[in-house]
Amino acid sequence: LFKKTLPSNCISLNSRDGQQIFQESYQSGHSACFFPLVSQFRTQDEPAFCALTSMVMILNALEIDPGSIWKGPWRWYDERMLLGCPPLKVVIRIGMNYDEFLSATVCNKLSVVNVRVDDNSDIRKFRECVQMCTKSDKCFLVATYSRCALNQNGGGHFSPIGGYHPEKDMILLLDTARFKYPPHWISIESLFNAMKVIDDITGNFSFCQLTGTSVTIVQTCVLNIHSNFR
Amino acid sequence: LFKKTLPSNCISLNSRDGQQIFQESYQSGHSACFFPLVSQFRTQDEPAFCALTSMVMILNALEIDPGSIWKGPWRWYDERMLLGCPPLKVVIRIGMNYDEFLSATVCNKLSVVNVRVDDNSDIRKFRECVQMCTKSDKCFLVATYSRCALNQNGGGHFSPIGGYHPEKDMILLLDTARFKYPPHWISIESLFNAMKVIDDITGNFSFCQLTGTSVTIVQTCVLNIHSNFR
Repeated sequence: LFKKTLPSNCISLNSRDGQQIFQESYQSGHSACFFPLVSQFRTQDEPAFCALTSMVMILNALEIDPGSIWKGPWRWYDERMLLGCPPLKVVIRIGMNYDEFLSATVCNKLSVVNVRVDDNSDIRKFRECVQMCTKSDKCFLVATYSRCALNQNGGGHFSPIGGYHPEKDMILLLDTARFKYPPHWISIESLFNAMKVIDDITGNFSFCQLTGTSVTIVQTCVLNIHSNFR
Repeated sequence: LFKKTLPSNCISLNSRDGQQIFQESYQSGHSACFFPLVSQFRTQDEPAFCALTSMVMILNALEIDPGSIWKGPWRWYDERMLLGCPPLKVVIRIGMNYDEFLSATVCNKLSVVNVRVDDNSDIRKFRECVQMCTKSDKCFLVATYSRCALNQNGGGHFSPIGGYHPEKDMILLLDTARFKYPPHWISIESLFNAMKVIDDITGNFSFCQLTGTSVTIVQTCVLNIHSNFR
């Protein structure tokens, strides 16, 4: 397979329209998160690494020092260096669920505000979070959602949010599965509905807000994974 | 080591000034190459992979189908899939030189216009190339230059050029060594002077202009590497 065609509800950032939406979004102040995030944009290293890659983009965008060597003499985050995740061979095969992702964010020095989405959730709360985070270069949003509900190819997926356009009420998904889809704009409402879809393992998809740096002890997280999330 | 401080002749794209320069550059029409390139921005997989990663960014920005599997069912370029390069274990150790890079571009379906820079070269020719390519989303520039000459840490380096600001006469380097430096603006003159520096192995550093798709037969390239460039 070489790429997929974006469904008509999505507007590629690279298109003329997508760039125009970006310009208006930037003027509105709601793309402050864009430059730090896109400067760390990555293709996920494996087809099931969307959660890990979303986290790596945010850790590097926040300029958090991993305190351990990446390669050569350099400290830097890539997917294989994250703490508190399920074993990589498991993630390569089946990916991660939202609970595992949340636990791992804390292990990797991120402060997380987690919001569960279900049929009773109010889109206004999500929009407020988007409006706040996209105006900041220190706060980033990750959404988990059903690709099917967006007419996209695939199942559950994690994406960082790279910008917001207030009048159009659209957000920019910096999709880390770049071998499949380019970065694209989509209506907040569509994304919110795609978060309400129920996941077999963890219930509804959700979103969270990430900032650095938490002080949680790594060992606690590792214990959490085994006791609560497995 | 965790990152390096950009020298004062470089302006980080993420800074307020860097974003302002980007906005003006975009309005001038000289950042047409930015969105396709930044949508494929990568961290080089190894500290010496700058040439390979620059090429991968451009191949993916041009949406060229590699015709071979990356991972899972997907076809996509990463550094380990490029054709006509020296053996990876050699590139990991010592990187690639400009001749090897040129040869590999052709093997990987890119059409290349190669311009050697020396003390007699005219900066106007380089500026013309920059002005032309940055207005297009189908033509990309890669420069090799001496980092030392830019007061940066390191030796010879490859970078794709992501935009141009006509009044300030500055270009945007989308540095793939993101563990070291963020994307940054620098004057064309500084970069041009850094291309004039003589490399021990291949002579002066240089630049080239890449578009897709060449029809050169791969075997020819492989022979070229051994007969002419080694």
